[in-house]
Amino acid sequence: MSECKIPYKIYLSEEEMPRVWYNVRADMRNKPAPLLHPATHQPMTAEELSAVFCEELVKQELDDTTPFFTIPTEIRDFYKMYRPSPLVRAYCLEEALGTPARIYYKFEGNNTSGSHKLNSAVAQAYYAKNQGLKGVTTETGAGQWGTALSMACSYLGLDCKVYMVKCSYEQKPFRREVMRVYGASVTPSPSESTQVGRRILAEHPGTSGSLGCAISEAVEVATSQPGYRYVLGSVLNQVLLHQSIIGLECKTALDKYGVKPDIIIGCAGGGSNLGGLISPFMGEKLRGEADYRFIAVEPASCPSFTRGRFAYDYCDTGMVCPLSKMYTLGSGFIPAPNHAGGLRYHGMSATLSQLYHDGYMEAVSVKQTEVFEAAEQFARIEGILPAPESSHAIKVAVDEALRCKETGEEKTILFGLTGTGYFDLVAYERFHDGQMTNYVPTDEDLAVGFAGLPKMD
Amino acid sequence: MSECKIPYKIYLSEEEMPRVWYNVRADMRNKPAPLLHPATHQPMTAEELSAVFCEELVKQELDDTTPFFTIPTEIRDFYKMYRPSPLVRAYCLEEALGTPARIYYKFEGNNTSGSHKLNSAVAQAYYAKNQGLKGVTTETGAGQWGTALSMACSYLGLDCKVYMVKCSYEQKPFRREVMRVYGASVTPSPSESTQVGRRILAEHPGTSGSLGCAISEAVEVATSQPGYRYVLGSVLNQVLLHQSIIGLECKTALDKYGVKPDIIIGCAGGGSNLGGLISPFMGEKLRGEADYRFIAVEPASCPSFTRGRFAYDYCDTGMVCPLSKMYTLGSGFIPAPNHAGGLRYHGMSATLSQLYHDGYMEAVSVKQTEVFEAAEQFARIEGILPAPESSHAIKVAVDEALRCKETGEEKTILFGLTGTGYFDLVAYERFHDGQMTNYVPTDEDLAVGFAGLPKMD
Repeated sequence: MSECKIPYKIYLSEEEMPRVWYNVRADMRNKPAPLLHPATHQPMTAEELSAVFCEELVKQELDDTTPFFTIPTEIRDFYKMYRPSPLVRAYCLEEALGTPARIYYKFEGNNTSGSHKLNSAVAQAYYAKNQGLKGVTTETGAGQWGTALSMACSYLGLDCKVYMVKCSYEQKPFRREVMRVYGASVTPSPSESTQVGRRILAEHPGTSGSLGCAISEAVEVATSQPGYRYVLGSVLNQVLLHQSIIGLECKTALDKYGVKPDIIIGCAGGGSNLGGLISPFMGEKLRGEADYRFIAVEPASCPSFTRGRFAYDYCDTGMVCPLSKMYTLGSGFIPAPNHAGGLRYHGMSATLSQLYHDGYMEAVSVKQTEVFEAAEQFARIEGILPAPESSHAIKVAVDEALRCKETGEEKTILFGLTGTGYFDLVAYERFHDGQMTNYVPTDEDLAVGFAGLPKMD
Repeated sequence: MSECKIPYKIYLSEEEMPRVWYNVRADMRNKPAPLLHPATHQPMTAEELSAVFCEELVKQELDDTTPFFTIPTEIRDFYKMYRPSPLVRAYCLEEALGTPARIYYKFEGNNTSGSHKLNSAVAQAYYAKNQGLKGVTTETGAGQWGTALSMACSYLGLDCKVYMVKCSYEQKPFRREVMRVYGASVTPSPSESTQVGRRILAEHPGTSGSLGCAISEAVEVATSQPGYRYVLGSVLNQVLLHQSIIGLECKTALDKYGVKPDIIIGCAGGGSNLGGLISPFMGEKLRGEADYRFIAVEPASCPSFTRGRFAYDYCDTGMVCPLSKMYTLGSGFIPAPNHAGGLRYHGMSATLSQLYHDGYMEAVSVKQTEVFEAAEQFARIEGILPAPESSHAIKVAVDEALRCKETGEEKTILFGLTGTGYFDLVAYERFHDGQMTNYVPTDEDLAVGFAGLPKMD
């Protein structure tokens, strides 16, 4: 089909929306390593995991052989309120860059939570509801996941308790307010409401919190209150499974127009978007049916892929969660407070870590002022105000497109535009006012985090 | 076609997007009264208007006989970055209300400016650019129009000077910041930078500003600096023309599924959304081809249709703009500062005023706590966090749907969901905290505004 027929925005019909999620682990020769019990260092059993997660999600978490999971009708109905999401041909950006490359981005920000997180939030809330639970607990950093979960819980009539990293709670009162619109309770973390929170506050009285702390608190509440389970917006295998809808929609839309991407780029914090975006394409690569370059983009201030260790580590600061084998900076690593661009998690999805370790994808890190420059350029040219997280991918997509300009190659670039920047305007303001700095941890900084890695037998 | 085949969201293809705007004045027997010169009270000539507006827009403003205007390719290309906008079937809301009514809403919030204002912003910026101008000036209240114009100007490479009502400037720093992302200069109004601003500040030292003041300042700057013209986001005939794309897309989408609305509802401040939404349907009614009920919804605190006078009045507080014959509360009327729901303009589109005067549509006013209750209900059920302005229409759509539940009538209701509430979370917070009150002006309050109406011969 001729190029000129490709619209600015490709919307699939609701009928074309995927009916299954794709589990990339089924096609991996080297499976991601199992979660281990934090005390015994033995693989977590389904029974043990069921104290934390609801049963259907435990099954999804542990299943590394079933390639497809049917998306329940109720979840598809919810998806229809904001999906299929548009795959956008960035004609304006291509023209502004003067590149022969063709650039596409999958925009996941057109829902009130403002990001892709809703794809897994509704799935996790649905299975919790289906199991007859009363509510769920979670943590949120920048607030995208907490907002998404609040929306899903409100729709399904579930109680929702969110532990929000204290600095975000204070800096983003509007995020809090959106969660309140959806009826969630939001507590700044660390808090006095949990044992682990009180312990962390005693050890670090002035702490502004971290995702790792908030996870510990949310898990404690879920496992100590009857009728509650914990849910998590990234890192887990189940999350990558749900987020595969992003990549599946991309693939369907591109196939429809006979387009094959050469390079697929996603920002990487815990890996939820990147994993979801690349899954079906990675499946083809794993099966030897096609080849793609995959690029994970992370902040230079929190460089788990590019400077981390591939090792078993705690998923949380309080060390109450299972151990996961992943690229990690150590569960004690906390990025500098001047880092505004999200993607602050110390570890990484075990699935993506294994794929990276096995050489199936690349990773680069970028500095935050470069990221905000790319964000503003993108906003002015393509209209959409991007989230800082998403702008990591924009930065590298632009770099690759400019490389094509030099070489004259007509490559097709696909990147994930995971969300909007509506709640990140304090960061944009700092950028405009020249107050944004670039923090890159020294080797000594990283050594502190690595020293806290658990000793394995 | 059977009902069940209607998707949650109807997206037209880019090919189906309208190629012309529709000028409802062409089908009106009683045309809207002409703009009058504020000093002479004689109809404004094209030449006089050209000192304020760019030439092509003056033509559009004055033309009440040409039914269709071709949308230039450049504007259509810009539209393709965020249009066609979705027409949503509110299945979830219908179910939650238990109504036999079928509810549709046209959602205009899926662009970074967050509202329908972009439809006219890009048109006005385009004609200014085409005339070789250097830049444009405007006012903004809640900030939707200013943001939209900033985006359009950034895309086209035009300078953009925004006078922002002081209380919004202070209460909505993030709106300001988005405009800054797009390179606009934003000045709180009234300011010391204009004669009229200095005069208003001298008379009312502590004033928090009004749309009428900001208009006066923007017009002064446009007419005193070479290479600049003034642009306005509502009220004008040209704006209704550009916004007709909303109604035209609705009509195309509904026709495609064989659906005919019985009731069409829009919020009304200056009339840009309402006029755009109803235009093509009103055309059918005026030509006797179909009948529809049209309902304008306005805040009880600024009730220009329901309690205003149909009279010539100043469009601005400084009385530097032409006089327009419209439903008005008097150019000196300023809604109470506790009014958070937008739609604060003292007057109304001359076209809509004439149609209302001639009995072609109805109007109702609603109180702001009712509006926020409807907004929150809608957010929880349909997922989208609505702008307070849009929520006026939601409130009345819900009321009409509940009426259908009582009578058992299966009416089809269409309403305009003009924007998102991302920048209105201070208002949501006040609502949650029980700090929101309902101000309804007394007859004495209104008498003050009416006393300021110009004496006509």
